Amino acid sequence: MSPEKKITVKKQAYTVNDELADEIRFLMKEKKKLFFNIMGSVGAGKTLLLENLAQRLSKYHRIFVINGDIATTIDSDRIAQHGVKTVQINTGGGCHLNANLIHKELNKINLDNYDIFFAENVGNLICPAAWDIGAQLNVVVVSITEGEYVIKKHPIIFKNAEIAIINKCDLDGLGFDSDILVEDASKIKSSMKIIRTSAKTGTGVEELIAALGIKVPKGEEYA
Amino acid sequence: MSPEKKITVKKQAYTVNDELADEIRFLMKEKKKLFFNIMGSVGAGKTLLLENLAQRLSKYHRIFVINGDIATTIDSDRIAQHGVKTVQINTGGGCHLNANLIHKELNKINLDNYDIFFAENVGNLICPAAWDIGAQLNVVVVSITEGEYVIKKHPIIFKNAEIAIINKCDLDGLGFDSDILVEDASKIKSSMKIIRTSAKTGTGVEELIAALGIKVPKGEEYA
Repeated sequence: MSPEKKITVKKQAYTVNDELADEIRFLMKEKKKLFFNIMGSVGAGKTLLLENLAQRLSKYHRIFVINGDIATTIDSDRIAQHGVKTVQINTGGGCHLNANLIHKELNKINLDNYDIFFAENVGNLICPAAWDIGAQLNVVVVSITEGEYVIKKHPIIFKNAEIAIINKCDLDGLGFDSDILVEDASKIKSSMKIIRTSAKTGTGVEELIAALGIKVPKGEEYA
Repeated sequence: MSPEKKITVKKQAYTVNDELADEIRFLMKEKKKLFFNIMGSVGAGKTLLLENLAQRLSKYHRIFVINGDIATTIDSDRIAQHGVKTVQINTGGGCHLNANLIHKELNKINLDNYDIFFAENVGNLICPAAWDIGAQLNVVVVSITEGEYVIKKHPIIFKNAEIAIINKCDLDGLGFDSDILVEDASKIKSSMKIIRTSAKTGTGVEELIAALGIKVPKGEEYA
């Protein structure tokens, strides 16, 4: 296959994806639903953060979580324990979710039965950056154990995100440093909302809920 | 584009890649060179392990390291400090090395000037698994901070590797557990060589050198 042909094929795939992503975003907006794309490497803490969110939000909102992984239903099983609806997409060898996969799952349910949708993308800091899934906000999670260069080395996914979560901050100072990651994230995108969290202790989760624009009754923020 | 067309295009790409990978493997064998593919997620410790290997082996062997990343020359700069030749491949958004990228770099040098070649693949536990780069041994590195499910969730890359390194074992017991990862790796592939390391302290690096089949003068194993 000629290089020109290869590029054309790839462009076509992106165009189809982006149109479908826009359709999902339009539908969610029209129905006044929230839809968030949670990206990050394996072990960054995406699932544990979603467990925290599910636990705190499920008494006020009806939540639907789509978990992407190349194998197993571990993530959706973990999150489902907290009173929210989950569905696992196994991509086989696929390294990212895309708008078509999301569209298919949303078609199986009645959107009106839920208020907030989360997609936990496949654990990977590269490929998910290139595929719009129709979310209103893209969130990227890194943990401070991933090394001090992790943000510098992955500029694309940070450019395409609105919120950066610096996780595992309970280990801050124990041979790991969150400051350098906060600095790098703000250098890549000055408008980036940066939130330090520990999904293990729950630190920063309330701040994340506020940054996502999710309302909880006044006085019950720490329920 | 029809689904059949898409599959055909992908198959063609893999076929071309695999032929080139076989060519690289044949050439390396003929010239009695060693070539290793080091895979693993971002922050697993691939670069620090290669720094350890470079430091210990560079007085006995002429080493060439190809570093793959989507951006920056951080990794090759770090490894080059230890008296070995390095070259950085920036893939842009590309999520893995392939045989063509390796072939191009090898074509620029005289292979006879080196004994051992390492490729540090792009930080990602998914995509590198699908692309043969012509190495004689595939090594996958995970760190115990990546969570207890990291191997269960990525069976393909472990099936395609001969050596699994369980890294950051200096943190073993401090909220992290290496035993579960060792168990999962051996379940996926009973013939897998599994080595516990701490790239930070140097633990396990001698065992890794032996597993790679690299000779060092007797009595100087811990030099």
